[in-house]
Amino acid sequence: MRDLPNDPIERLIALLARTPGLGRRSARRAVLKMLMHPQDTMLPLADALTQAAQAVRPCETCGNLDARSPCGICRDPQRDRHLICVVEGVAELWALERAHAHRGLYHVLGGVLSPLGGVGPEDLAIQPLLSRIGEGGVEEVIVALPATVDGTATAHYLTDRLKPTGVAVTRLAQGVPVGGALDVLDEGTLAAALRARRPV
Amino acid sequence: MRDLPNDPIERLIALLARTPGLGRRSARRAVLKMLMHPQDTMLPLADALTQAAQAVRPCETCGNLDARSPCGICRDPQRDRHLICVVEGVAELWALERAHAHRGLYHVLGGVLSPLGGVGPEDLAIQPLLSRIGEGGVEEVIVALPATVDGTATAHYLTDRLKPTGVAVTRLAQGVPVGGALDVLDEGTLAAALRARRPV
Repeated sequence: MRDLPNDPIERLIALLARTPGLGRRSARRAVLKMLMHPQDTMLPLADALTQAAQAVRPCETCGNLDARSPCGICRDPQRDRHLICVVEGVAELWALERAHAHRGLYHVLGGVLSPLGGVGPEDLAIQPLLSRIGEGGVEEVIVALPATVDGTATAHYLTDRLKPTGVAVTRLAQGVPVGGALDVLDEGTLAAALRARRPV
Repeated sequence: MRDLPNDPIERLIALLARTPGLGRRSARRAVLKMLMHPQDTMLPLADALTQAAQAVRPCETCGNLDARSPCGICRDPQRDRHLICVVEGVAELWALERAHAHRGLYHVLGGVLSPLGGVGPEDLAIQPLLSRIGEGGVEEVIVALPATVDGTATAHYLTDRLKPTGVAVTRLAQGVPVGGALDVLDEGTLAAALRARRPV
């Protein structure tokens, strides 16, 4: 453990301050608060961290993170196995799960193509996706990649690779976010929403 | 462990979200980030939490939290043992230490008097402070309590209790914002207030 203080309190503050979203000041306050009731706060958190670190691994089928592999979603008999939603990462998978809008399975790509970042097709889980489709039963692949330059390029590339399999390929609709004010939206989104307008 | 999910990931998110300063959304993002390198992030943090929970206790002399008792400040031969700074809690003690402005010892009161909150003199470490002074060698007590109504009342009460001991009693200079908590103040203000302390 490099550059960490030996003192238990300072060491804990330094490690907790590495948590995304917590700065050093918040970490210090949190540690002080936890030290008031260490048995009720610090030991359960330590236990949960250890358990998660030991148990959680990527699902061998879809790439989701779970304590079991295949993951809970891949094992769920209620999920529609004809439908695979392709996402960039686990964060996006979890976001879609919170929306309760997708009842099919997932496939985590592990990134998007990035010529400048040195990310090529062989760095992404594209071949495993083709293998899953090759096993049969998949009817539609929803490409739910970010609407960035790299995300869009990856979606195009993926669509080309999926074409020979014969499955239907769809992508998320672009438009105005639900509850979003028009005047703070960027021009690209507004233009896309206008182009994709639908009769009421 | 009440009301906690069984799933290791959900359980960790729920526990981490209890950390002051982290909401559920930040906790989820932090867990996801940590799960990318669990051995380097989660296990050291779990270890530091366990160690701190087991080692850290209140100093039997001053009430500071430390892995040893008496604490590092009370043991430090460089500190001026004629000077005791009375603070409300450990957060305030740490804030003063960060300001590097006080070279004496501390005494953690464990709160301030609060008639409405049901906090009386017997709930605070006032008698232990008088005992420390009774052991001799203390020449000045700096009352560094918050400039709130309860803090000011506590400072007055404490001054009255200290009068018979014959030690000089001083307080932090005005310069501490009225109604402000000590532990969120910047070091410069704290240092200036300490330097300009005045007899009561």
